[in-house]
Amino acid sequence: MNIAEKILSSHIVEGDMVKGHEIAIKIDQTLTQDSTGTMAYLQLEALGIDRVKTELSVAYVDHNMLQEGFENADDHKFIQTIAAKYGIYFSRPGNGICHQVHLERFGKPGKTLLGSDSHTPTGGGLGMLAIGAGGLDVALAMAGEPYRIIMPEIVNVRLTGKLRSWVSAKDIILELLRRLTVKGGVGKIFEYSGEGVTTLSVPERATIANMGAELGATTSIFPSDIRTYEFLKAQKREEDFEALTADNDAQYDDIIEINLDELEPMVALPHSPDNVKKVKDVGKIKVDQVAIGSCTNSSYADLMKVASILKGGLVAENVSLVISPGSRQVLNMLAENGALADLIAAGARILENACGPCIGMGQAPATNAVSLRTFNRNFYGRCGTKTASVYLVSPEVAAASALSGYLIDPREIGDAPVIAVPDRFKVNDNMIIKPPSVDKKEEITVVRGPNIKPFPLNKPLSDIQKRVLIKVGDDITTDHIMPSNAKLLPLRSNIPELSKHCFETIDADFSKRAMEWEGGIIVGGNNYGQGSSREHAALAPLQLSVKAVITKSFARIHKANLINSGILPLTFVSSDDYDNIDQGDLLTIENAVEQVKKGGTITIKNETKNTTFEVNLDVSDRNREILLAGGLINFVKNK
Amino acid sequence: MNIAEKILSSHIVEGDMVKGHEIAIKIDQTLTQDSTGTMAYLQLEALGIDRVKTELSVAYVDHNMLQEGFENADDHKFIQTIAAKYGIYFSRPGNGICHQVHLERFGKPGKTLLGSDSHTPTGGGLGMLAIGAGGLDVALAMAGEPYRIIMPEIVNVRLTGKLRSWVSAKDIILELLRRLTVKGGVGKIFEYSGEGVTTLSVPERATIANMGAELGATTSIFPSDIRTYEFLKAQKREEDFEALTADNDAQYDDIIEINLDELEPMVALPHSPDNVKKVKDVGKIKVDQVAIGSCTNSSYADLMKVASILKGGLVAENVSLVISPGSRQVLNMLAENGALADLIAAGARILENACGPCIGMGQAPATNAVSLRTFNRNFYGRCGTKTASVYLVSPEVAAASALSGYLIDPREIGDAPVIAVPDRFKVNDNMIIKPPSVDKKEEITVVRGPNIKPFPLNKPLSDIQKRVLIKVGDDITTDHIMPSNAKLLPLRSNIPELSKHCFETIDADFSKRAMEWEGGIIVGGNNYGQGSSREHAALAPLQLSVKAVITKSFARIHKANLINSGILPLTFVSSDDYDNIDQGDLLTIENAVEQVKKGGTITIKNETKNTTFEVNLDVSDRNREILLAGGLINFVKNK
Repeated sequence: MNIAEKILSSHIVEGDMVKGHEIAIKIDQTLTQDSTGTMAYLQLEALGIDRVKTELSVAYVDHNMLQEGFENADDHKFIQTIAAKYGIYFSRPGNGICHQVHLERFGKPGKTLLGSDSHTPTGGGLGMLAIGAGGLDVALAMAGEPYRIIMPEIVNVRLTGKLRSWVSAKDIILELLRRLTVKGGVGKIFEYSGEGVTTLSVPERATIANMGAELGATTSIFPSDIRTYEFLKAQKREEDFEALTADNDAQYDDIIEINLDELEPMVALPHSPDNVKKVKDVGKIKVDQVAIGSCTNSSYADLMKVASILKGGLVAENVSLVISPGSRQVLNMLAENGALADLIAAGARILENACGPCIGMGQAPATNAVSLRTFNRNFYGRCGTKTASVYLVSPEVAAASALSGYLIDPREIGDAPVIAVPDRFKVNDNMIIKPPSVDKKEEITVVRGPNIKPFPLNKPLSDIQKRVLIKVGDDITTDHIMPSNAKLLPLRSNIPELSKHCFETIDADFSKRAMEWEGGIIVGGNNYGQGSSREHAALAPLQLSVKAVITKSFARIHKANLINSGILPLTFVSSDDYDNIDQGDLLTIENAVEQVKKGGTITIKNETKNTTFEVNLDVSDRNREILLAGGLINFVKNK
Repeated sequence: MNIAEKILSSHIVEGDMVKGHEIAIKIDQTLTQDSTGTMAYLQLEALGIDRVKTELSVAYVDHNMLQEGFENADDHKFIQTIAAKYGIYFSRPGNGICHQVHLERFGKPGKTLLGSDSHTPTGGGLGMLAIGAGGLDVALAMAGEPYRIIMPEIVNVRLTGKLRSWVSAKDIILELLRRLTVKGGVGKIFEYSGEGVTTLSVPERATIANMGAELGATTSIFPSDIRTYEFLKAQKREEDFEALTADNDAQYDDIIEINLDELEPMVALPHSPDNVKKVKDVGKIKVDQVAIGSCTNSSYADLMKVASILKGGLVAENVSLVISPGSRQVLNMLAENGALADLIAAGARILENACGPCIGMGQAPATNAVSLRTFNRNFYGRCGTKTASVYLVSPEVAAASALSGYLIDPREIGDAPVIAVPDRFKVNDNMIIKPPSVDKKEEITVVRGPNIKPFPLNKPLSDIQKRVLIKVGDDITTDHIMPSNAKLLPLRSNIPELSKHCFETIDADFSKRAMEWEGGIIVGGNNYGQGSSREHAALAPLQLSVKAVITKSFARIHKANLINSGILPLTFVSSDDYDNIDQGDLLTIENAVEQVKKGGTITIKNETKNTTFEVNLDVSDRNREILLAGGLINFVKNK
């Protein structure tokens, strides 16, 4: 077996490991960050369990660190107190980026990790099977539920040779993105092997696994070997080591070879991580901003390299260089060994050790600016400035370019710095709060700011007699259903308030009507719910007591979200029936429980028009049970 | 003479130093920060000079450092390039807070400093006469114009004794605020003397002078003595030293004595800096946030004290401690000597060396939170959270309370740290860009983001025939005339765009009508233009070609702003005439130039109603000339 198969097989609780089939696996560890965590913990709370059932769950705070309004500090307090109540470790604001800290202090080879952040695969650098997921999935994992995925293809990435001077781990993953594009990893796990792997430290492997998310991959994974042992020992965690390599006769669905000897410094041009070229082929572009950090490239060695390059120099006059260290461990070590002083003396602006500019949390570039970033994404507008051009590069390219004022190949500036992997990291877990023992649970008060409201729960299915709240056409997106913008984002932990804006861009009175009519039914055309995977496009209708959505067809993810919310996703048997329904019509689904249970078509009576018509409920048996229970959370609670 | 009189008399260019009389003084140095600087430099540009005429002008960037949109980085680029063009030093983003950096690197005893920031008096710690002013005043000073003030009272603050352990400079100014209140300093200069002064270092004196602004004072000033020499020498600037003390027979308008021996740790309670109590009398309040930094308390010694108190400890579990060092010099020294590592290890969050939370730029506390801050202002809502309670304290009280989790008198925790004043600060001016020589001026292109528009200039006065754009009632505020909110703040460097929102809260069509009618006249009641001193409440009407405002009476500052914009501020001779005018009436002022020149009443014809009425133009001779020239900038340009 290969490494991925070994971990999957030791964690499988349902299904067979056959490509394309659904399997359910046990989750050992979970992580959340603050921007997705608040909702995940509201969902955990709704599940009604006493304490998390994972081996380890950690709540991090790293996204909303600028804190321009009370909502952020309120969220942090909520997460801190609910973590204590449910037995979850809490990493205090200022302790660092979730993926970096988890790698340093918690990750374990051979374990499964589910995180409510798309860069959770970073843990693959330690030989974990680490997967990013939605908040509800992570909440269910904390409640002890297995995680369901379609068994992915497993692709072997064989690394031969050794990186040359000035070429780094970032260039390996940029090369892979160049070859495979951002869609090349969908439904796949990338498993690294070959002599080249042994030349890479755990943080370097983590850089590659982290940015493997940009391939669209399920995850990426490295073996657990002597380098893994060295890293864990330097973190005073050698007891967490477990060797894990693929069997000699391991099979893969595909093989990709990368010769590290041949790689050169790379750059992803605007506006996609797969728009990759060699730096030397791009030419000298004038640079306005350089941003170093993020969960991709903010390890101790990354920043030591940067400090070494900048030492004694000065950031070019027209460049703003901002550095966000990955963790307090990294920052503290740089502060102790003088490297931070070197960075400051050279004109670097030291930001908090947090996600920062990578998620557009500050440092929006100037109009038409060129920004070089060591981050993982350069999507259009993500930096906060629509006219800016963001280029993704290694820390070496970033630092050399910051001095030069132009995007340059660092091989131009002389010898590359050689940074020794430390024998001992500075281990100081005093900003990680261990949850109190379960008997102290009752003493803990969960602090809930005025913007944090309980997660809305549906009721078990019963007969439905509701009016049609709205009738919309084809291709309605989740942005139509539940708009997202600067005004509405702070409401994402407050579904009652957020739901007042449901459908508001196309019908300002929708939510008011839904409240007056005490819920209702939505009628839509083809491809209803396309676009963003936004869970809130189902939660807002749930809050407004929408009981069913009847359409010509659904977008896949929105349909799943409706099921999870206990809202019936129904499709017209005959599209003509769509034409015979109007807003305000009173519809009845009699014997709803029996009709859902039995499968086949469901009969709906239009009391207003005095007609009946048939609809399909095209869902799995498990989903029928979820709908009968009134949504996924109730379904799990009932078990 | 006292110190203030010595500096005033050596700088006076007009008027007599008689209390209550207007005097005009030469300005040696100016400073701006980025939030006021953009407009100040647009005004400087409008003045049409080649190069600043001060001895030294410095442009700092310290306010908009979070940079959530392109506007901030655009402003920084604009300021950097226009500074180069006009011969102004530019302190790059990341170099520190204007007042701290100016103290370290530029301030000189005996000089006058005018700054577009209310805490400019910080320079008084060095024996400068340092005054905060509006952007236009600073622009005029850069153009070589004298600064006009009403000759203030000079109050002697005699310090006797010596601060006891755990009591600091912050407690001196808090005590003064307790005694005098926030209105106690209006129209006054506070001049410090006495044996107690010699026990205070320059940064300690700067803390006091800085927060003297909260008394409403014109400024505060300390002697320039051996401590001043030591500070300048440690900054490698001993050549800038000049001794400056009051004559033995110096006279003062008032005398206040403070015995430093008797002071204890103080705290300003919400929501005013003069709501001062002894910490020990307030009781143990649970604390949620501690914020250390700001231009008041972020010097090397301040932060070394904090590091010493925190070393080996841990910030209490429920407290977020954020530290913004005052300058890159301070940060760099802490990074070199290990104190920064101590702060990080104890759980402090290190923010950029900038104004930060003091101006509500991030770190808004949680709902109902208690925030202890070493800052200078705790006005309601200023921190970004309306329900929060902000307490102002010394760094010692802040640090001890951060460890405890409660507001505590630090005398409870043992011996106070003793921090030596450094013999040598780390001098590194590589982030301060010296302007190129004047012959390079043409090579410099001022970079102007899309949100930065030229300052609107009026034309010399001529006959007026315009319609009444709006007729409003009594007590119209500058907030009615030119609203300010999160949407409009980023437009403050873009008067054409901003003016579209003029009067919008009371008349949505005002600006549209003004553009259609090609300007016009505003009619108001009593106390027109009260409230904020907002210059933009005159600039928006100027942009919209408003030629005159006729009211029953004006608020003082808005009237001055109208004059500066070249808009006639007229008052009805008979209030009854107010009743006979309506929106849309066509008014004529014939021979406007002659009528304004001659003084006395001005005759206006209402063409629509076929009536005439008289108005007063109650302004000084100089203001008549300003109005004839079409505003202050034209007036100065013409000279």
